[in-house]
Amino acid sequence: LIVETAHRLLTAPGLKGRRVLVSAGPTWEPFDPVRYITNPSSGKMGYALAAVAARRWADVHLVSGPTSLPAPLGVHLHRVTTALEMKDAVTKLAEDMDVIIMAAAVSDYRPVEAAPQKIKKTSGTMTVQLEKNPDILLALGRDRSASRPNVLVGFAAETENLVQHATEKLTKKNLDFIVANNLTQSGAGFGVDTNQVKIIERSGKIIELPCLAKEEVAERILDRVEQLLADAAHYETD
Amino acid sequence: LIVETAHRLLTAPGLKGRRVLVSAGPTWEPFDPVRYITNPSSGKMGYALAAVAARRWADVHLVSGPTSLPAPLGVHLHRVTTALEMKDAVTKLAEDMDVIIMAAAVSDYRPVEAAPQKIKKTSGTMTVQLEKNPDILLALGRDRSASRPNVLVGFAAETENLVQHATEKLTKKNLDFIVANNLTQSGAGFGVDTNQVKIIERSGKIIELPCLAKEEVAERILDRVEQLLADAAHYETD
Repeated sequence: LIVETAHRLLTAPGLKGRRVLVSAGPTWEPFDPVRYITNPSSGKMGYALAAVAARRWADVHLVSGPTSLPAPLGVHLHRVTTALEMKDAVTKLAEDMDVIIMAAAVSDYRPVEAAPQKIKKTSGTMTVQLEKNPDILLALGRDRSASRPNVLVGFAAETENLVQHATEKLTKKNLDFIVANNLTQSGAGFGVDTNQVKIIERSGKIIELPCLAKEEVAERILDRVEQLLADAAHYETD
Repeated sequence: LIVETAHRLLTAPGLKGRRVLVSAGPTWEPFDPVRYITNPSSGKMGYALAAVAARRWADVHLVSGPTSLPAPLGVHLHRVTTALEMKDAVTKLAEDMDVIIMAAAVSDYRPVEAAPQKIKKTSGTMTVQLEKNPDILLALGRDRSASRPNVLVGFAAETENLVQHATEKLTKKNLDFIVANNLTQSGAGFGVDTNQVKIIERSGKIIELPCLAKEEVAERILDRVEQLLADAAHYETD
């Protein structure tokens, strides 16, 4: 607490007065009370973004799927389990935000049915029917008014054709930039404390960052967010 | 470390010279590199058993699925991901063990196929075909010789008909006792730091424990294990 408070006092309040929404972690999509589909997201990247934004004096809302991480200091934490719950929480908060960074690894699909009791393992095989979850980021990008949010950022985690897949997502979802990482690279992506990412912008410009601690990656992402906010403010006063 | 070492010096070496295998945590059953089926096991119950057994001077092997927990002091930690990997690790160790406690929440089913690359969300629905995983505990119970392991313990986590389901499992899997907990009870089961269990014995005797810290539950379970080992030694010397 003391270290974090001191850290904040030594950090430039570059996001003072800004409302920042960060989503983090995986979602759980249950097909009975003790079984679900998920992904290996630890939430570390999103929690680092929330912590660094709070240190820069932003008013931070963190919508988090299930993780074992402690709440970052001075952040409003909203805990959810499924993609549908995450959509509800994000949608309620979104219209008041200046910046939205969707770092959560939301499950694309959920089981069509969830049994109310634990399914007993009677037969040798079992089939789980899945249906698509709503695309939260796509909806946010589509609903963007001229001013809200000023900055919308997504993540793309891929195992192949990284730049191509990430650029398609950037365009389709109407983002300001996308943070892309290759899951097949060691020291990057899920669970680990470091990440190696490319920041891909609307202009097509690609910033390749080295392998860094996730908190350092968060600093770089929020530096870019601050620049975009400053540019927007510049236009507004023109 | 100092606290744990002091704790050990103050604990009776009731399992000195005993080899104890504990399994812990969930397993992950992938259907592509970033999506898998799992359950909410945190590994806390199994890690508590391993820590307490080591404190009583046992030679402890902990076979653990993916968890965010640190390795307990003085325990041989074997990390695995899937049920098949857990079966391999447990099978290799099993024949040298005096005590086996299967506290892991092993996935009953795994996807028949696992895609080598991340599946792109193209269609509105998706079907995952599952096949049964091998029942590790059943195999251990079936292969029990007269002497090895001396004590075999399982867990049953149920949402309904707890005692009936757990007793069936105890008999079918040839266990010495089973630790049963009701997942619908608050303060029991997955993720939380406490557990409320019933210990069901071969004789039909049921010991109902109150809601206790998982480490305290581990103490009670290992007390019962020590009794069974003492009884076995008594027969051997008759």
